Amino acid sequence: MSLLSNYLSVRKFSETICEPLQIEDYVVQPIEDVSPPKWHLGHTAWFFETFILKPNLIAYREFDPNYNYVFNSYYETVGARVIRTDRGNLSRPTVEDVYKYRAYVDEAMESFLCREPEESVKELLILGLNHEQQHQELLRYDIKYILGHNPLFPAYADEHIEQDLKVEDQVWLKVDAGVYEIGHEGNDFCFDNELGRHKVYLADFEISTSLVSNAEYLEFIEDKGYQDFKHWHAEAWDWVNTNKITAPLYWHFVDEEWLRYDLAGGLKPLKLEDAVTHISFYEAAAFASWKGMRLPTEFEWEIAAQKLDWGKLWEWTESSYLPYPGFSKAPGAIGEYNGKFMVSQKVLRGASVATSPNHKRLTYRNFFYPGLRWHYNGLRLSK
Amino acid sequence: MSLLSNYLSVRKFSETICEPLQIEDYVVQPIEDVSPPKWHLGHTAWFFETFILKPNLIAYREFDPNYNYVFNSYYETVGARVIRTDRGNLSRPTVEDVYKYRAYVDEAMESFLCREPEESVKELLILGLNHEQQHQELLRYDIKYILGHNPLFPAYADEHIEQDLKVEDQVWLKVDAGVYEIGHEGNDFCFDNELGRHKVYLADFEISTSLVSNAEYLEFIEDKGYQDFKHWHAEAWDWVNTNKITAPLYWHFVDEEWLRYDLAGGLKPLKLEDAVTHISFYEAAAFASWKGMRLPTEFEWEIAAQKLDWGKLWEWTESSYLPYPGFSKAPGAIGEYNGKFMVSQKVLRGASVATSPNHKRLTYRNFFYPGLRWHYNGLRLSK
Amino acid sequence: MSLLSNYLSVRKFSETICEPLQIEDYVVQPIEDVSPPKWHLGHTAWFFETFILKPNLIAYREFDPNYNYVFNSYYETVGARVIRTDRGNLSRPTVEDVYKYRAYVDEAMESFLCREPEESVKELLILGLNHEQQHQELLRYDIKYILGHNPLFPAYADEHIEQDLKVEDQVWLKVDAGVYEIGHEGNDFCFDNELGRHKVYLADFEISTSLVSNAEYLEFIEDKGYQDFKHWHAEAWDWVNTNKITAPLYWHFVDEEWLRYDLAGGLKPLKLEDAVTHISFYEAAAFASWKGMRLPTEFEWEIAAQKLDWGKLWEWTESSYLPYPGFSKAPGAIGEYNGKFMVSQKVLRGASVATSPNHKRLTYRNFFYPGLRWHYNGLRLSK
Amino acid sequence: MSLLSNYLSVRKFSETICEPLQIEDYVVQPIEDVSPPKWHLGHTAWFFETFILKPNLIAYREFDPNYNYVFNSYYETVGARVIRTDRGNLSRPTVEDVYKYRAYVDEAMESFLCREPEESVKELLILGLNHEQQHQELLRYDIKYILGHNPLFPAYADEHIEQDLKVEDQVWLKVDAGVYEIGHEGNDFCFDNELGRHKVYLADFEISTSLVSNAEYLEFIEDKGYQDFKHWHAEAWDWVNTNKITAPLYWHFVDEEWLRYDLAGGLKPLKLEDAVTHISFYEAAAFASWKGMRLPTEFEWEIAAQKLDWGKLWEWTESSYLPYPGFSKAPGAIGEYNGKFMVSQKVLRGASVATSPNHKRLTYRNFFYPGLRWHYNGLRLSK
Repeated sequence: MSLLSNYLSVRKFSETICEPLQIEDYVVQPIEDVSPPKWHLGHTAWFFETFILKPNLIAYREFDPNYNYVFNSYYETVGARVIRTDRGNLSRPTVEDVYKYRAYVDEAMESFLCREPEESVKELLILGLNHEQQHQELLRYDIKYILGHNPLFPAYADEHIEQDLKVEDQVWLKVDAGVYEIGHEGNDFCFDNELGRHKVYLADFEISTSLVSNAEYLEFIEDKGYQDFKHWHAEAWDWVNTNKITAPLYWHFVDEEWLRYDLAGGLKPLKLEDAVTHISFYEAAAFASWKGMRLPTEFEWEIAAQKLDWGKLWEWTESSYLPYPGFSKAPGAIGEYNGKFMVSQKVLRGASVATSPNHKRLTYRNFFYPGLRWHYNGLRLSK
Repeated sequence: MSLLSNYLSVRKFSETICEPLQIEDYVVQPIEDVSPPKWHLGHTAWFFETFILKPNLIAYREFDPNYNYVFNSYYETVGARVIRTDRGNLSRPTVEDVYKYRAYVDEAMESFLCREPEESVKELLILGLNHEQQHQELLRYDIKYILGHNPLFPAYADEHIEQDLKVEDQVWLKVDAGVYEIGHEGNDFCFDNELGRHKVYLADFEISTSLVSNAEYLEFIEDKGYQDFKHWHAEAWDWVNTNKITAPLYWHFVDEEWLRYDLAGGLKPLKLEDAVTHISFYEAAAFASWKGMRLPTEFEWEIAAQKLDWGKLWEWTESSYLPYPGFSKAPGAIGEYNGKFMVSQKVLRGASVATSPNHKRLTYRNFFYPGLRWHYNGLRLSK
Repeated sequence: MSLLSNYLSVRKFSETICEPLQIEDYVVQPIEDVSPPKWHLGHTAWFFETFILKPNLIAYREFDPNYNYVFNSYYETVGARVIRTDRGNLSRPTVEDVYKYRAYVDEAMESFLCREPEESVKELLILGLNHEQQHQELLRYDIKYILGHNPLFPAYADEHIEQDLKVEDQVWLKVDAGVYEIGHEGNDFCFDNELGRHKVYLADFEISTSLVSNAEYLEFIEDKGYQDFKHWHAEAWDWVNTNKITAPLYWHFVDEEWLRYDLAGGLKPLKLEDAVTHISFYEAAAFASWKGMRLPTEFEWEIAAQKLDWGKLWEWTESSYLPYPGFSKAPGAIGEYNGKFMVSQKVLRGASVATSPNHKRLTYRNFFYPGLRWHYNGLRLSK
Repeated sequence: MSLLSNYLSVRKFSETICEPLQIEDYVVQPIEDVSPPKWHLGHTAWFFETFILKPNLIAYREFDPNYNYVFNSYYETVGARVIRTDRGNLSRPTVEDVYKYRAYVDEAMESFLCREPEESVKELLILGLNHEQQHQELLRYDIKYILGHNPLFPAYADEHIEQDLKVEDQVWLKVDAGVYEIGHEGNDFCFDNELGRHKVYLADFEISTSLVSNAEYLEFIEDKGYQDFKHWHAEAWDWVNTNKITAPLYWHFVDEEWLRYDLAGGLKPLKLEDAVTHISFYEAAAFASWKGMRLPTEFEWEIAAQKLDWGKLWEWTESSYLPYPGFSKAPGAIGEYNGKFMVSQKVLRGASVATSPNHKRLTYRNFFYPGLRWHYNGLRLSK
């Protein structure tokens, strides 16, 4: 696929995800972690405008100078930004304006991509596309949160990504102790945090071939797992009690039955055979402790996954998100991409049903704070 | 005007106010005090559905049972409600749905009003219309807040209510000491908090015939009034410092010049001859103290206003919002209307350019917490 | 009594109140409103040092220049102060140091008072003594809070001020409508907020000759008064729910019985015949509403109290704390005494068992925020 | 040394540390992380009473049943506890009571230790002594915080532990790549988190033989390191700005000079040749980034430290505090000791001048949240 057609196809996909939305759905920000869908659409356009068009297309005229202020996310290098909790207070630019902005940027990009760009720009462009794919996945999470927390429980679409989360039968895969190689290899795109390729020593371990199911997780709930501090980290126990957590996100106990919000609309009975999802690291670790097992490290995961079927849900690991040996940040704004988050977060490995096509990689390192759970995550046991 | 045509004209006016809005503007709630415009539109329809149609129109079928949950404001009698800070997180019902809801309720009301309702229902209906007019004024405040806090400073309309705020020349009106009568008299509609009519003793006082102007207020700013604790109540001084307040709401100091957000779009130079507005009680009291004067009480105001020109801006008074002698709450949900707010708030008297037609009364008692200032208020000196 | 002996007797009484304390009791600040006893002792000495000795005794040498920083309360005129929530973090100066400071100041005051001071200084001195008496009453509240919130429920003293709170039989006193005079008259000391003497018009009213008893208040509790929003102001209802309030402060429901902390140590059964105390204005108003009655205004109280027995507990009134007609602040730091608190607080009238001798006056206006209840307050019904 | 004499000497040392304190210093809790010294003294006694005496000494009579409530720290197994932020609100038990409690427990322990206890009790006892030594170090931190944040800057003692923090000349130690063994070995006491001994692969690295000095850190400050987001993690940058951090804890910029609080009393000029201390992980990492270097991992540290001089300050590492392979918690309350903190914290290695004698170990893993800095920590560069 040419760079241009790749560009156009990625850009189009963001809009496809938003197609089922009403204008109002694009605007709200029910919690700080969730961004309004129109913000994602604007921000990803802003990325190309700011890092590709403005520095490289001499005659390029900015769509609207105020948009820099509105659509910057966290690139301190680039200047003041709307603070994150304010995103949901902005009724303007309208959704229509944002789509015009995207079309404007895309048209300029089309002109720009008539000629083969130089290597460094091409790299930035590919980064921009991967960046947009990450926001596509966030769009999935955020749209679900917006609809799934509305008291009317509106539908996203009849056909949707959650229809195939069934868990396979469990087998234990054994991996032998030894020195293994970790991290991205080769010339394909990867994020800076997947480099450099390096050796780790792993002790013997066993890992489950399947994700934990709703049925298994329900046993934990029914065994009063949420009421027994023994299974929980100290800060997790505070989190459970402060937030009165008693089940995964989107679960509702109605008339003695567990229901969950369904993207096809309304609350539906839990599918016991599906993989459990929308749990925090705290819950994943508490469940594992209750089972007398543990989560794999990200290194164990990367080695074992070569022989596993993976990719329906991001899998919480025991590993903290830290730099690999020899890690170095790129200079300038792009250098803010990953390194500055390398404290206090946990690594998730794999991919999910919400991950965009061609955005899946064995060495991919996703990361979230341990108390978050609005993303499509799950849990695989190790021992 | 017949009850029906009165009903239809009031109902229509809420929609007229919202006509210049984009769909997105209907949805957001930038601060707790501001409600999304679509919420005002839904809530005022809900009032008629809940208090008139459901109890009195036998065959009436609720538009949507979930709307009770979404559009109740604070009537604890009527059941659970969306907590106030959550209103801006609701993308559904959509704006279109809300307009359908209004049309549905209006059609049912038209049928209902074919026959003359009994007296108690008529009273409730008139209360409902006054209630909607109060929300019309809140709509004005909230729309201004939403647009005036957007970094793009979008226009509401070319012609708008702030174009005639010019202040008259100041004269001091003297009022003699004596026993005066306060409160509503006669059979016209009034709120319960304007009753009962009662006597108060007033000492001699003088009151200005004009509101304080931007020019005068600017002197206070330039004399460092915001930096001198002497003029401020203790809790006001905390408010100034915690919120870093240095000027009225909507004022911006740009390139050595004071600008203010303009409903016609953008930031425009301050009109010095206009009445100062969008100040808190704290600021009004501090300004009066700096002048060596004071605010009138609501009783002084009500007596003096018989000889004053008033009504461009709600005027802060020194009075706290308390029950008049003999005040009693109506039974049921309607009784929650006023009495439960009679603590910690200050009274404002008069009316404003945002007040709906026919919703102005000498005895009207408006009330806000002393730190609020997004409403159209102002200040008249007394001594 | 001479000025000097009056001075010495007031000063001594502060120390008498603290006599039963352990050193540790002097230090802690369990909530923002409560100050450490050693702080009260230091602050009242600081008042005489700062306003009498430093300006008037030429050769006076400050005890310790840092004490100005530590013991100023809220006199912005006098400079930076330890912020209020930090008072309980200061282990130094020690209790012994504070007593030395008091002795040092008292010795200097003795020299100073050998000669009759000029009139303006005398006035300041009398203000200082009244100020210290106010802190004596606060000491009573704060010591009770410190001991009564300790899980060991230690004793203050076997004989104490709460032993005589029995309520008399209830009779209704009728007062006729008319114009009455309010406020302090004559040359005795009063606070600026009791001036100027002025006329008010009062409608007919009736007022109870007795305070509400624990027995009556218990009926309110048992009738589920704390669970019925109808009786509560809107902000009171939030207060009840946020703080999970179900009874007056210091009450504990243990083994199906209501107990209360006893200054003689431990938890003891409630005395049903005693006046109810340690309730907020919110609770007082809710109780009155449940009874179908109301609280008196401070003006009604001042007129009626001429024929009532009063003074065991400060009585919540319906009145907000506002300036009397013609009120003006004194210049300088002393002017910060009262006026700056005249917003958002409620007036209490009377006096309490914790009030110091000779510090009781018909026209005295005490004031607290409506949600506070650690002071000795109570409730008298009106209708 | 016999078990008993070891017991008595450890117990004595806690009291020796507190000897210079005034009673008031034992009581306060200026921030949540700091506990009142009397609480440490009581809590360490409670440990022996609860885990040794009550289960093993048949005739043992509890000193005071309420003390369990007051002195439990975080052992959920053992029952309700005073919530952590309330510790500074408790004036009782008094300091004298706490010393009596210690004497009572020590006497009972002396009787108990007349006979050789069985192995499992002996292990618990040794854990108790190590636990007390940890609290001895915390006492050092907390006492410094209490005195060093008092506006009078009182002295702890003329001779004190900070007098020998001079940094050596810097040399770079090279370590070759390879598989190394990590974790405690042998039969001596260690905490559960130092087990099990396991292999790690390390790439080549270099590590400084000396800690970073105040002089070097000052360069970072003067190069505006605290104002340049580039060096900081995203959450660190929020921390710097929210808390307005501009230098290590206890540093004050007075009259154009950097001073620091001195345990001998008052503020003294910074000793440039001393190791920098009282910095957060965030600051350590930002400094390293500014230098173009990094912090060592705890594994690199443990291998390199065999050839390094270490022990004046706890050294921040890049490693998160996670379980070693095969880690398992002890059953019961003792199992809450370490495992439940294994999320969101960073590892520090080494020991400090505040560490108690015989409480220093190459494999010791200390851990704190990345934003804390009241402990004696420092920084060693790696590359």
